[in-house]
Amino acid sequence: MPKVVDHEARREELADAMWRVALRDGFPAVSVRTVAREAGWSPGALRHYFATSGEMIAFAVEWAVRQVRQRFDALDAARGGAVTPATPLEILEQLLPLDANRRVESEAWLTLVSNAHVGAQLREQRREVDGLIRYVVRTVIRQLDDLGRLAAHRDPEVETARLHALLDGLVVQGIADPPGVTPTGIRAVLHQHLDDLAHQADLTHQADRPTARGTEEQRNSPCRDVAQPSSHSQPLRTGTADGVDLAST
Amino acid sequence: MPKVVDHEARREELADAMWRVALRDGFPAVSVRTVAREAGWSPGALRHYFATSGEMIAFAVEWAVRQVRQRFDALDAARGGAVTPATPLEILEQLLPLDANRRVESEAWLTLVSNAHVGAQLREQRREVDGLIRYVVRTVIRQLDDLGRLAAHRDPEVETARLHALLDGLVVQGIADPPGVTPTGIRAVLHQHLDDLAHQADLTHQADRPTARGTEEQRNSPCRDVAQPSSHSQPLRTGTADGVDLAST
Repeated sequence: MPKVVDHEARREELADAMWRVALRDGFPAVSVRTVAREAGWSPGALRHYFATSGEMIAFAVEWAVRQVRQRFDALDAARGGAVTPATPLEILEQLLPLDANRRVESEAWLTLVSNAHVGAQLREQRREVDGLIRYVVRTVIRQLDDLGRLAAHRDPEVETARLHALLDGLVVQGIADPPGVTPTGIRAVLHQHLDDLAHQADLTHQADRPTARGTEEQRNSPCRDVAQPSSHSQPLRTGTADGVDLAST
Repeated sequence: MPKVVDHEARREELADAMWRVALRDGFPAVSVRTVAREAGWSPGALRHYFATSGEMIAFAVEWAVRQVRQRFDALDAARGGAVTPATPLEILEQLLPLDANRRVESEAWLTLVSNAHVGAQLREQRREVDGLIRYVVRTVIRQLDDLGRLAAHRDPEVETARLHALLDGLVVQGIADPPGVTPTGIRAVLHQHLDDLAHQADLTHQADRPTARGTEEQRNSPCRDVAQPSSHSQPLRTGTADGVDLAST
């Protein structure tokens, strides 16, 4: 009988080695050479799995997304699917560099963002990851509304775009060397932001402002959504059974 | 007499060629090869000015910073040094990808951020640029306070970190392909954010929150400032006469 190579197990082994390199030396240190050495493989054997550095980035980001989704699932299970006042913050914190693992995830994301022009695969993956984050942020805004923590006249599309940008910026600042914001600072900023959302915006200059609200306006919303995952459970085909299922919360 | 080569004029010529390539094809298309072709130089002649791609990135970012500073100077001159209710927004808009030129500046910034690990020069430049942006944002927060548009109990350090992160994120989203937020959306988000700053935050859970205020707490502020430019007028030695002088406003 032909020898059956368990490619999935080999990929898991590579992912473990990649993550060890990234946790120890930062994601920029991840390369065919360093991951092969960490795994005890030849660079040639590793190239069977990743022919290009772009494929390696894509693999790392897939792995990061899988980890985030597993944490979402665990959180969802822990609170039995219910939304509590703590839920929005708890969800957002999964996307930010608040510990060593999430720092590596954030570094992999930034590498994807800055390499998205390199080729069609990374460009599409960036679009998918952005769409997934936008979906999570939109869900959080909806949760805040359900919790009575979103002021009545706020535009959910503007607030979604604002919170999404804030998250991206906290990641950029949080993984800078030296960091522009510490984990404690990230939490302070998030608290402040969520508190503000509960309060009425100043409507004095409403006429000057290019906000949008309501069905008609939302079709022409200034805050364009890059991508809505076609399936909530499998937007990145990372192989988890359930995936992010915040829609049910 | 030896021939005197005007290196500064040659660098201006290169910067013009670089910017034309970036405006036409995006900053990722900027390389020794494409800029040399655009300028009508040999790649060898161009390498006299930029030995590495890192030096080219550093040059592009210096150029971008110089452009931003010139716009700050022009705005400051136009309003005769006075701060009006329109000033904070006007300043922030100079840092965002709201037109073709600012888009290239934003792309150069992201390239710097994602290459800051490559060597000491880019790492230091990233620190300086972040420090400059932080300084501008802190100035805007102070202006809002002077204008009576910053609620009394807000922590200026938390708000500075939050607004800085929001700007970074709007840049990342604004230059994505396709963009995650349009120029109209960027303006809507900024309006909303500045409006919110005028309003009292919810103080219900103040005790739970890792915010800081007052002299003692500010020394241990969670929102760490990466760098304070040693000189307001010349933080990046870009050769402009006056530079950003927002402190006088």
